[in-house]
Amino acid sequence: MYSRGPECQVMSEYSPTDLRFGAGIWMFGQFLDRYATDGYGPPVAVCDAIRLAGSVGSLEAVDLNYPFWDAEGDVARIQDALLQAGLRASAVTPSIYTREFRGGAFTNPDPKTRQRAVELVARATEAAYALGADYVKLWPGQDGHDYPFQVDHGRVWELALDGLRQVAEPYPGMRFAIEYKPREPRIQIVFSTAAKTLLGIEQVGLPNLGILLDLGHSLNAGETPAEAAQLILTRSRLLGVDFNDNFRRWDDDLAVASVHLMETVEFLLVLRQHGWKGLWQLDQFPFREDPVAAARASIRTLTALHRVIDRLDLAALAAAQERHDALEAQRLVQDALFGNFIDDHPVR
Amino acid sequence: MYSRGPECQVMSEYSPTDLRFGAGIWMFGQFLDRYATDGYGPPVAVCDAIRLAGSVGSLEAVDLNYPFWDAEGDVARIQDALLQAGLRASAVTPSIYTREFRGGAFTNPDPKTRQRAVELVARATEAAYALGADYVKLWPGQDGHDYPFQVDHGRVWELALDGLRQVAEPYPGMRFAIEYKPREPRIQIVFSTAAKTLLGIEQVGLPNLGILLDLGHSLNAGETPAEAAQLILTRSRLLGVDFNDNFRRWDDDLAVASVHLMETVEFLLVLRQHGWKGLWQLDQFPFREDPVAAARASIRTLTALHRVIDRLDLAALAAAQERHDALEAQRLVQDALFGNFIDDHPVR
Amino acid sequence: MYSRGPECQVMSEYSPTDLRFGAGIWMFGQFLDRYATDGYGPPVAVCDAIRLAGSVGSLEAVDLNYPFWDAEGDVARIQDALLQAGLRASAVTPSIYTREFRGGAFTNPDPKTRQRAVELVARATEAAYALGADYVKLWPGQDGHDYPFQVDHGRVWELALDGLRQVAEPYPGMRFAIEYKPREPRIQIVFSTAAKTLLGIEQVGLPNLGILLDLGHSLNAGETPAEAAQLILTRSRLLGVDFNDNFRRWDDDLAVASVHLMETVEFLLVLRQHGWKGLWQLDQFPFREDPVAAARASIRTLTALHRVIDRLDLAALAAAQERHDALEAQRLVQDALFGNFIDDHPVR
Amino acid sequence: MYSRGPECQVMSEYSPTDLRFGAGIWMFGQFLDRYATDGYGPPVAVCDAIRLAGSVGSLEAVDLNYPFWDAEGDVARIQDALLQAGLRASAVTPSIYTREFRGGAFTNPDPKTRQRAVELVARATEAAYALGADYVKLWPGQDGHDYPFQVDHGRVWELALDGLRQVAEPYPGMRFAIEYKPREPRIQIVFSTAAKTLLGIEQVGLPNLGILLDLGHSLNAGETPAEAAQLILTRSRLLGVDFNDNFRRWDDDLAVASVHLMETVEFLLVLRQHGWKGLWQLDQFPFREDPVAAARASIRTLTALHRVIDRLDLAALAAAQERHDALEAQRLVQDALFGNFIDDHPVR
Repeated sequence: MYSRGPECQVMSEYSPTDLRFGAGIWMFGQFLDRYATDGYGPPVAVCDAIRLAGSVGSLEAVDLNYPFWDAEGDVARIQDALLQAGLRASAVTPSIYTREFRGGAFTNPDPKTRQRAVELVARATEAAYALGADYVKLWPGQDGHDYPFQVDHGRVWELALDGLRQVAEPYPGMRFAIEYKPREPRIQIVFSTAAKTLLGIEQVGLPNLGILLDLGHSLNAGETPAEAAQLILTRSRLLGVDFNDNFRRWDDDLAVASVHLMETVEFLLVLRQHGWKGLWQLDQFPFREDPVAAARASIRTLTALHRVIDRLDLAALAAAQERHDALEAQRLVQDALFGNFIDDHPVR
Repeated sequence: MYSRGPECQVMSEYSPTDLRFGAGIWMFGQFLDRYATDGYGPPVAVCDAIRLAGSVGSLEAVDLNYPFWDAEGDVARIQDALLQAGLRASAVTPSIYTREFRGGAFTNPDPKTRQRAVELVARATEAAYALGADYVKLWPGQDGHDYPFQVDHGRVWELALDGLRQVAEPYPGMRFAIEYKPREPRIQIVFSTAAKTLLGIEQVGLPNLGILLDLGHSLNAGETPAEAAQLILTRSRLLGVDFNDNFRRWDDDLAVASVHLMETVEFLLVLRQHGWKGLWQLDQFPFREDPVAAARASIRTLTALHRVIDRLDLAALAAAQERHDALEAQRLVQDALFGNFIDDHPVR
Repeated sequence: MYSRGPECQVMSEYSPTDLRFGAGIWMFGQFLDRYATDGYGPPVAVCDAIRLAGSVGSLEAVDLNYPFWDAEGDVARIQDALLQAGLRASAVTPSIYTREFRGGAFTNPDPKTRQRAVELVARATEAAYALGADYVKLWPGQDGHDYPFQVDHGRVWELALDGLRQVAEPYPGMRFAIEYKPREPRIQIVFSTAAKTLLGIEQVGLPNLGILLDLGHSLNAGETPAEAAQLILTRSRLLGVDFNDNFRRWDDDLAVASVHLMETVEFLLVLRQHGWKGLWQLDQFPFREDPVAAARASIRTLTALHRVIDRLDLAALAAAQERHDALEAQRLVQDALFGNFIDDHPVR
Repeated sequence: MYSRGPECQVMSEYSPTDLRFGAGIWMFGQFLDRYATDGYGPPVAVCDAIRLAGSVGSLEAVDLNYPFWDAEGDVARIQDALLQAGLRASAVTPSIYTREFRGGAFTNPDPKTRQRAVELVARATEAAYALGADYVKLWPGQDGHDYPFQVDHGRVWELALDGLRQVAEPYPGMRFAIEYKPREPRIQIVFSTAAKTLLGIEQVGLPNLGILLDLGHSLNAGETPAEAAQLILTRSRLLGVDFNDNFRRWDDDLAVASVHLMETVEFLLVLRQHGWKGLWQLDQFPFREDPVAAARASIRTLTALHRVIDRLDLAALAAAQERHDALEAQRLVQDALFGNFIDDHPVR
């Protein structure tokens, strides 16, 4: 019979000071899109981006694209920049989604390109070792298809799994986190949902493969993020979480809880209930905002939402959930959220 | 030049005791859907539904379907039931969406059915007069189309506008509120968005036509509800507002702010800034919940959200909006929302 | 290495006369929804629905709800009606989604209700044996949740799998097909996608569990239906297919290919390439159409689309797919679709 | 009373040779997105893009971004390139969506930026005159908002209309076509739907303002494109049409009819029924395809779809639409589509 287990006890021990934050380094770089091709701001050198990340003041670590932008493969330079900024590397993310891989990385029809993707991940893995990163993040955003009839779906699936196998098997000491996403840049990405990614991971069968759950990707995929987290956690495949928000139709990468406040709290709650000890990482694209201010805003929000959960009557919530009592569950969360200025409306 | 005008002053005068609540009577009736055809609960007589509505304790008025379910056209019986329940009629909603009108009411291909729809609205209007209702609500949910190629779209549009004209013109003393909705039960409903409905209203040109803005319909239509409200208010066509929530993909009619808390606050704010004095009406379908509890939950939430707005620094928000400063605007709202337990995260 | 295998040969042997059609019996019954609570037409007795299904003229079998509407559990009466109509039972679908199960069947918080769901499926399974049906269809449309915070997602998942185990284990000789669907009537249904359902099936580990792929559910879930079919077929879990169409936002249950013609062809193609020998079943809700005409329209369309595939240059398509050449793949399909009246536009 | 008028007669006179095609010049340039920041291909000089457009072989005209990429404001160079390529300018589209205007063009909070947007449109208008373009296209893709609470929606609407007035009023001899789009790059764009854009145009009240209807934008906005076209045509505000396709969730800019074949035919049909004499323009982003091949594919498809309409029994379709007979309407279209290889399925 299902049991939530001892991690329930863990929960009450949390305090805001336990929260450890991270961010994708891209958040502090230059943003382009297909219209503002001159960029939403000027180019940023990677060391400047690291310095900016450090200036946020509450970040412990950054997830680094590999190659390291203008620093290419220069690990020493990155190590130095991280040290000066008071940061460490949480992850290294090989850039298997640029021009070279526009037709797919692991699933590219050209075997040589597939091979180059595997080699790029290998180099990124070496860098991850050198930097002491927690995991290598795989985001195969170009792997999939665009048009009806374009691909043999069985072939694409097998190639995607082969790619995972080829990158993860030689490095049993490193963990590889697949970041699933339903679409963009590929219109239909192979690793689109938590369940499909778990299915692939279990088919590959390697213990060092897991998932990076990006909250916005889950919302965009039509999932209940708390449920997706639960599914991954139960199978012990959660390696990282990225926070942001959107309007569900697209991966807008907005500041945390700016739209889906309630679902963000539910997501945090499930992570806490499972004793999640990892980083709370930010993956935002502040196209029109200052990135440092955007990071601070999300950290402030996440901290506040943790305090909301601190105030939440968890026993009463568990009892309400046992009955599937949505109104009572929502009332308990509102009590924690609104604090002292809510009371039941006076009845005539 | 655009100016928000004197209603800004109105805002600070609001207090929770000013809030006047209403609800659709259907919220207290029996729910069916295409699967649970035996209903989510037993049938409810209209007088029992009115009694239930009265038992909520904070409702002032109800929006009544016409015919009045088992009471058919018996206005006296309804008046008596309302009196006993301490309620009044906010609106009368002719049932122009039942079997008879499955192929459309105003836009039905059969002229006799169109005529019957107009006649039904006329009888509902007489009932609205007799009950002292604020407006007749028109929800032409069967008017539109399902399939590509099914209709001549120009013809459907003209018939829809003819219908509005025929029902509203004979009763210049009564207001008619069109409740727009993008889909369901018709897959594509003619009056689908705020803008399209305004376009139709202005083409018809009658002063007694306006809009009932259902918050969930606006979310489902892909609108920013606060913006839709603003557009309608500026043209002085807002006759009513219905509150509920959903996941944007469908009109789920959930309890208020259970999903879109932030956008609900923004919507409330725009209404307050325009000095909206009407009812805050509930349009929920608590399929699996007790309707009285569901109504009380939403009233409690709306009251709390009003207190959030009471605490909101409106001058600072206006200044942030003047700069389109999203992070600052969100920070101000969070300050009001989280109250005393948020502070800026301590920087190392 | 992946190989599509011997079923490729099967394909060319297909001819329209091989197509065997079925339909859900509900297609010929009365439709209700939450607005037209008086139904889109009059009530229909189950034997009349069977007679109507027989009158379509090309149906071989029907999927029957259990209890059998007004015939309740009377298998003999159904057998007789089927015989007279020239039909057989393809499947029996226990009604685990009516009022009694509004809070969930397998996942209901009340253990007695869960037990009643299991017992209802057992009775339906006995009826399926008696009728010689191919499989029992499980459509747990009330199993899931509506609100953030309503349920403990881990608990719901375990209960859902327990339910599958309890109904399928005692009947190793019968196959049980889970029909996944992302939403409706529950806002978030547990078995929401092909991948999540496969994950659950593999966790349960019984050989007689499989999937009924409803084309419209797959579209609504944001899947590429051909890819979902491929995934299920590769794992040998495809037990049935239901055809219909929609606008992706909801399960509109329209006539086949009325909207997504291209994706319907791609879906058919994958089924044929895997040598699918099962029925082509219809699951439509012709709210405003004659059901017999609606069934005939879809059969006519499916037959035409099969002829399109007959004309398709499969070797050239395979070569294009090997290169992920979307434009060429689409061109080949268009050639087959438009037949003799397309040629390359004359270049000046 | 509504009447479709004399343009019905026009229809039968159409033949493929009447079709005149155009394309956005960006289709032949370099594509970037926020991930493949090194571009999906190498940079392309504008004269090379014009040469590529000319090589398609069936294009009559191109819509040109202003400034003209590397040719900046050099009209003479463009004229020369067009002449050599056998093309003319259909439209000039000022780039009011690049870095400078990331916070909005007409609605930018900074009055100086708003002024620069107006000036840029003025220069583009002068270029449009010089090139003999049919219209200036306004695509205010950065005008709108991203976050709840970010803007005063009334203020944004007024600024958007002021912008239209300021650019169109000084040039009564030039037409200005607003291309509406629901989102991207701004998350919520002001001119989001046909109806909202018409509402704005009518509020401004200038005769030289109209609409460019992009088929994919309409699909993405949840409209029925044929209905949107009808609405705009009836008010005589249709200045241009752009063709492409997508999966409704995003503006994927795929080849024409690769997904929504049926709705594309319905859209074409409405244009023909209103005697549309303008260009059939392509607006695709062939990220991973050869742009010349992509253009030829869409032209081939559009030509084929016109032949489908040539074969369509319009009198029978009108009769079916008069009855809202979806099945019959679809049958007629399928007859035209599938040609001689469809017949009614033999009934047993």
